[in-house]
Amino acid sequence: MQDTVSPAQLRQRIREGLHTGNTSGLAPGYVQCNLAILPADWAGDFLRFCQLNPRPCPLVGMANAPGDVALPPLGDIDIRSDVPSYRVFRDGELTEEVSDITSLWRDDLVTFALGCSFSFEEALLADGLEVRNVSQGVNVPMYRTTIPCHPAGAFGGDMVVSMRPFRAADAIRAVQICTRFPSVHGAPVHLGDPALIGIEDLSRPDYGDAVRVDDDELPLFWACGVTPQVALERARPPFAITHSPGCMLVTDLRNSRLAVL
Amino acid sequence: MQDTVSPAQLRQRIREGLHTGNTSGLAPGYVQCNLAILPADWAGDFLRFCQLNPRPCPLVGMANAPGDVALPPLGDIDIRSDVPSYRVFRDGELTEEVSDITSLWRDDLVTFALGCSFSFEEALLADGLEVRNVSQGVNVPMYRTTIPCHPAGAFGGDMVVSMRPFRAADAIRAVQICTRFPSVHGAPVHLGDPALIGIEDLSRPDYGDAVRVDDDELPLFWACGVTPQVALERARPPFAITHSPGCMLVTDLRNSRLAVL
Repeated sequence: MQDTVSPAQLRQRIREGLHTGNTSGLAPGYVQCNLAILPADWAGDFLRFCQLNPRPCPLVGMANAPGDVALPPLGDIDIRSDVPSYRVFRDGELTEEVSDITSLWRDDLVTFALGCSFSFEEALLADGLEVRNVSQGVNVPMYRTTIPCHPAGAFGGDMVVSMRPFRAADAIRAVQICTRFPSVHGAPVHLGDPALIGIEDLSRPDYGDAVRVDDDELPLFWACGVTPQVALERARPPFAITHSPGCMLVTDLRNSRLAVL
Repeated sequence: MQDTVSPAQLRQRIREGLHTGNTSGLAPGYVQCNLAILPADWAGDFLRFCQLNPRPCPLVGMANAPGDVALPPLGDIDIRSDVPSYRVFRDGELTEEVSDITSLWRDDLVTFALGCSFSFEEALLADGLEVRNVSQGVNVPMYRTTIPCHPAGAFGGDMVVSMRPFRAADAIRAVQICTRFPSVHGAPVHLGDPALIGIEDLSRPDYGDAVRVDDDELPLFWACGVTPQVALERARPPFAITHSPGCMLVTDLRNSRLAVL
């Protein structure tokens, strides 16, 4: 698979079962999304949860109606087959991991596509900043915090954040760059002392991998797309589908188009 | 003196010798400037110094020609009388502090007006942030750093910074707000550990007053308009005039017009 493949070509390969893994670094320049699919009678609360918590749950697109498998503004998408790997949850428990959900599809399912940190990492890298999880070739470290989300129905809980370390001048630049991209988590929600947001040990992330933090660096914390997944597991809807970690929905939307200025 | 006085009214009072003190908080909403006046044969290097170091030396306006006492885009100004208090330097040494420089004026003097932190402090306060030096009613603490300026001719030296403490979320917001105002020092140049920029003890500023920094706060450091004054003292031109600290040139330019977006 070449890096220069278009989003449509990549989705075609995924649709045909020829690519079932991570989408990190593929179709560079294009928005990749977190995926959440819920029954219609749960979708209203989830939508309200996203609107109340735009930093961890930035809504980039959603289906026009229950049962719709298309997401027209994001490309020629069939949501049942165009994501490399899906996680299926029943009563809040992960029960299956599959590469196609056509056989599971129901006419009451509502699809949500949420912004993902790949977009702002690309903007940071393009500015010449070192993104530590990228340079170390590992998954970004993620942590549960004590920052409460605004609840909506059964959806609630605390925010999950991702962490990237920077020296101070680069930290300031990173705030500036990410501020331009509110629909992919935007500016950090915290920087400096991890204990102030309930993180006890940076070397022991709750998800992903630990990364090096040098003495002259500050940890920067961004609201993370794992937050809605945790809210989903906590809400325990009878049925739900998400993407598998790192296996994102690749869209035709350019990252640069997400910049508010 | 009412807060609601216009810049022109305030300058008129200053011109008549009726106001000779601090301009902090007066004519709110309008840009106040640091002042530097130099002989023409030193002005070229100083202009280049400002252009090379826009964070500490943001040029808001300058006279059209040597000897000009007007600064047309900034208001109906006579620079010889419209600043409450001036400092006169000869061979880099402060020799006089006066309220009018008409008798000292020469037809080779070039006037520079540089942005000042009052503008971004107003923007921070308008956003609901607490600016510690304002709430404590003291001068902002300022520190010499080990951040080198780019030299131009005899002008050079290290950057002076001002410090304001914030909790992390407010620090991030402060970076966002100040980024909109590059002509009044812009975003902070550093945050977090003071030692990384050569500051040994926050409680002992080189200029101004110490302020309280709480345990859950980070110090944020902005490039400071004292930097060009230090460069000026260091360059030791035979003759130079600046404003006295806190006694600024009040202009007709609205702070909001300095926002780049």
